[in-house]
Amino acid sequence: MIPTITTFGWVPEFARGFVRDLRPRWAFEEVGQCYRVDLISDSKSPEHRRLQPFGQVPTYRDDEVAIFESGAIVLRIAERAGKLIPVATAPRMRALQWLAAALSSVEPYVMALAVNDIFEADREWSKARHAKVVDDLKTRLTDLEAALGDNVWLDGDEFTVGDLMMVSVLGELRGSAELAYFTRLAAYIGRGESRPAFTKAIADHMATFEAPAAS
Amino acid sequence: MIPTITTFGWVPEFARGFVRDLRPRWAFEEVGQCYRVDLISDSKSPEHRRLQPFGQVPTYRDDEVAIFESGAIVLRIAERAGKLIPVATAPRMRALQWLAAALSSVEPYVMALAVNDIFEADREWSKARHAKVVDDLKTRLTDLEAALGDNVWLDGDEFTVGDLMMVSVLGELRGSAELAYFTRLAAYIGRGESRPAFTKAIADHMATFEAPAAS
Repeated sequence: MIPTITTFGWVPEFARGFVRDLRPRWAFEEVGQCYRVDLISDSKSPEHRRLQPFGQVPTYRDDEVAIFESGAIVLRIAERAGKLIPVATAPRMRALQWLAAALSSVEPYVMALAVNDIFEADREWSKARHAKVVDDLKTRLTDLEAALGDNVWLDGDEFTVGDLMMVSVLGELRGSAELAYFTRLAAYIGRGESRPAFTKAIADHMATFEAPAAS
Repeated sequence: MIPTITTFGWVPEFARGFVRDLRPRWAFEEVGQCYRVDLISDSKSPEHRRLQPFGQVPTYRDDEVAIFESGAIVLRIAERAGKLIPVATAPRMRALQWLAAALSSVEPYVMALAVNDIFEADREWSKARHAKVVDDLKTRLTDLEAALGDNVWLDGDEFTVGDLMMVSVLGELRGSAELAYFTRLAAYIGRGESRPAFTKAIADHMATFEAPAAS
């Protein structure tokens, strides 16, 4: 079977470009693996929860493996292809370290801003809390920018699953004012998002929402 | 060299039992690997930031690998020992899926409660926001409990890095009222924390803070 991911057939306009199927799509394009997409309308259905207990997307399956969690999915695509992840132990573990850092040390702060400013915008605390959420995020971005330094990618010259995930996470700040303070990080995101594989992935992701509904 | 982790030599009493060096300590004990601990007092120092750009603990090094991020460290300890992670591709990827789920899909909600109720306790929004943070956490715990079902461990009968990380993350709720609603999850945490390797790991972790300071 062709590796298959599950994601939404429709999302509100503000969410387009931000759904996490973008991550496996990008990984597939990087390694040159064709793939199928199963579109669903209700991620909270009992059927979907059998694949993804939290009622989210994406999920992934191939001949051998059926999993959820974008971090594990991207790793599976990379390992299956023997690309995007170094073979030698030390750089391999550093790539996995950056993958974990994107998900554990950076994304919670990016998501906290989205939650406060979008999903909790009508709550009584949202305005008062905004500055604290931004401060926490900026602390993380300052540290990350220092770690990146003058490197092209996080671990030097080789683009890995760690960069794919970090650029994906930071990309969730697209359109936010906070990134303007971080010129090196913005350039790093720009390098990631100008890769042909990303360009193809996001075009296919966006095309999902432009297609006429099947009759 | 003996694998070595870096962590704090002292933390305030409320943080004892919760510092993330507990995760690699537990993994080391599970696989039967002796290890060294380098105690530091200032995780924000330039020297430490060269090992951990976000100024946190733990860090890890062995003969081949030097990394941070508890998720990557626990995976390194497991892979180096050839234990705690299945060899066959499908169950191996499911173990990595649960490791990622612990860090990406559960921990942010556990940490949000700690941040709101402890670190932001004196902020004007803390009390008003508490119920929302608890609701979000309970939604995740409900889904996780349903996924666990009647299993002993998340993927069935075998304890993996996925369980080690999930029990570690859920263990941060120790002493919180929220867990009382989730009897299966509480029993799962209990099974994890009653493993001899965990008992030894947390005893060694706590002993750090009881030792008289070196003169």
